[in-house]
Amino acid sequence: MNEIIERMSAAEAGVLLQRVRERRPRVHALMNTVVQKFTADGITAVGAIPSMTSSLEEIADFVTKADALTINLGTLDQERRKVIRLAVEVANAAGKPWIVDPVHCDYSPGRLAFARELIALGPTVVRGNKAEMALIGDTQASLRIETGPVDHLQDGPVHMVVRNGHPLMAKVTGTGCLSGGVIAAFLAVEKNALKAAAAALATTGVAAERAAVEARGPGSFEPAFLDALAELGGEDLSKDARIDHETA
Amino acid sequence: MNEIIERMSAAEAGVLLQRVRERRPRVHALMNTVVQKFTADGITAVGAIPSMTSSLEEIADFVTKADALTINLGTLDQERRKVIRLAVEVANAAGKPWIVDPVHCDYSPGRLAFARELIALGPTVVRGNKAEMALIGDTQASLRIETGPVDHLQDGPVHMVVRNGHPLMAKVTGTGCLSGGVIAAFLAVEKNALKAAAAALATTGVAAERAAVEARGPGSFEPAFLDALAELGGEDLSKDARIDHETA
Amino acid sequence: MNEIIERMSAAEAGVLLQRVRERRPRVHALMNTVVQKFTADGITAVGAIPSMTSSLEEIADFVTKADALTINLGTLDQERRKVIRLAVEVANAAGKPWIVDPVHCDYSPGRLAFARELIALGPTVVRGNKAEMALIGDTQASLRIETGPVDHLQDGPVHMVVRNGHPLMAKVTGTGCLSGGVIAAFLAVEKNALKAAAAALATTGVAAERAAVEARGPGSFEPAFLDALAELGGEDLSKDARIDHETA
Repeated sequence: MNEIIERMSAAEAGVLLQRVRERRPRVHALMNTVVQKFTADGITAVGAIPSMTSSLEEIADFVTKADALTINLGTLDQERRKVIRLAVEVANAAGKPWIVDPVHCDYSPGRLAFARELIALGPTVVRGNKAEMALIGDTQASLRIETGPVDHLQDGPVHMVVRNGHPLMAKVTGTGCLSGGVIAAFLAVEKNALKAAAAALATTGVAAERAAVEARGPGSFEPAFLDALAELGGEDLSKDARIDHETA
Repeated sequence: MNEIIERMSAAEAGVLLQRVRERRPRVHALMNTVVQKFTADGITAVGAIPSMTSSLEEIADFVTKADALTINLGTLDQERRKVIRLAVEVANAAGKPWIVDPVHCDYSPGRLAFARELIALGPTVVRGNKAEMALIGDTQASLRIETGPVDHLQDGPVHMVVRNGHPLMAKVTGTGCLSGGVIAAFLAVEKNALKAAAAALATTGVAAERAAVEARGPGSFEPAFLDALAELGGEDLSKDARIDHETA
Repeated sequence: MNEIIERMSAAEAGVLLQRVRERRPRVHALMNTVVQKFTADGITAVGAIPSMTSSLEEIADFVTKADALTINLGTLDQERRKVIRLAVEVANAAGKPWIVDPVHCDYSPGRLAFARELIALGPTVVRGNKAEMALIGDTQASLRIETGPVDHLQDGPVHMVVRNGHPLMAKVTGTGCLSGGVIAAFLAVEKNALKAAAAALATTGVAAERAAVEARGPGSFEPAFLDALAELGGEDLSKDARIDHETA
């Protein structure tokens, strides 16, 4: 068992956040049309550089420029399927990390089928909520993340839990989508996907906890969350990240 | 005349808001690409559950899952026309309420023609501003709403007026579009469309009044408005809704 | 040399801002899908009236209604290229001012080629950052603007510099895109493109300076920026605009 290798302290999460801020990786986000700006602002706030086009003739150039890719299946149509397939091909050929968020695949059999097609292509991470991940089923090769009040990360036999976050996140459209972009930023600077993702989820979770102190409701939570994401230092994360370790 | 049946007190509006918060209806929003997130956040803030895809291959699944549908004609193209037609077909077949917002139909004859095509298909509600509704003309079957400094609701001979709201609403792109989503949420829990829509407009209007007290301008009005929408209780509405009744 | 004609005082910038607020020009924005709402809110905040459709069958009607046009090359696909070509044709035929923002043309050769195609059609203004403008090269007919910590405006031999702004602008996705919409609003009320653009950039820059005083980070900067844009009067600009004049 490799449980020692996969242990991660809050301090390590802080180191990874600092690394994102220093290296400023480029993250291309194939994001649903609803939350493109929120996601781009979130990626910028952690120190990475977002790009967002989902045009078939541009996507190869943009993924080539990027250090990591996040793919969200919201507002999915035929054109976007083609774009996503090409983006994955380019990312895989160049060995770049990518994450799939099969949002609302429980609403549409066609979206679920496409999610499974993508997962067979070997994403670094698959992230969804409980209902979505139950439908996705086994995803052998990838790190599986089930987000919720507590986030569960599963990489083969190794299981991590991130306990940061706040209920207001669920009241703002796109916090999950945004966290996909933040995970991609961390994947770009850390090869151990489990550690990268745990640090990323602790980052958004701690930022949410801080924002909730300032916010009066979901409206004011959103700018406060972006402020907190931008302000958060490695030391803050070292103090407040709550990452637990379990082996299945 | 059925004027007594259609009378509505502020307390009744409060009861309907509580019902939305308890039943958590699903609202599918075929929304222009400009204000998708703002609309989704508004639908969430009143306690309903938004979905937003406008993909031809997904729309039937999503409308089938939804309890009500809002259709906004902004950023309209050929593909979106097809999607809207299919969404209406599914909603009509299942007897689900739907609302049309013929935004900017005064800018484009093609958009106006499409608005009329839709209205002939029997929406539960048509909502526009004065210029838009003047062009739409008579819409016999549906509840007509003309929004503005005062909102006028007309259902055959029965007329209601909602006097809530604030001028800052007109300075933020998408408050009208968002209110279409909120009306859909109320239609999902109340068969009397006139009462549902009046309660919905009082809800967004009272929230705007409260937000305006906090806001310094249109930028800070937006988060304050979402906060107020999320915070507003049935009792608040019972106290502050200003709904008048007239029979034509 | 025409350097005297092209001199511009802060007071003149204030006069132009007042003119925008009084005349309320219509600005059509062919804007990338990421920042459509932010741009529309910014155009509204300076007193102009935005419209946003990028549908092929509607664009001619909307440009015909508009007083100026802003074209942003983000999220560019085949359909959008056709729409942009038609929009430019309508604007040129009617003698309406238009501005091109070749955002991220340094990421994609196809986007750069399209930017050059547009520039050959005679835009009133081309605006980009340093990397983008270096690639664009010479653009004889048009006013060239290179935005950055300091904005450089070049019209043939005449050079102006606008020193307003704040680093937080670069942390919020879309402030540059939004400023394209504000420049279009000023072009609609002032034939001298150099003066119109300098006044517009001073307006967004002074608003950013004021917002930065209120903001805690990029999240709270955004609503504060829109508040400041809406609040700014001609007198404020007369006091705080920092426009310098140089002749090449």
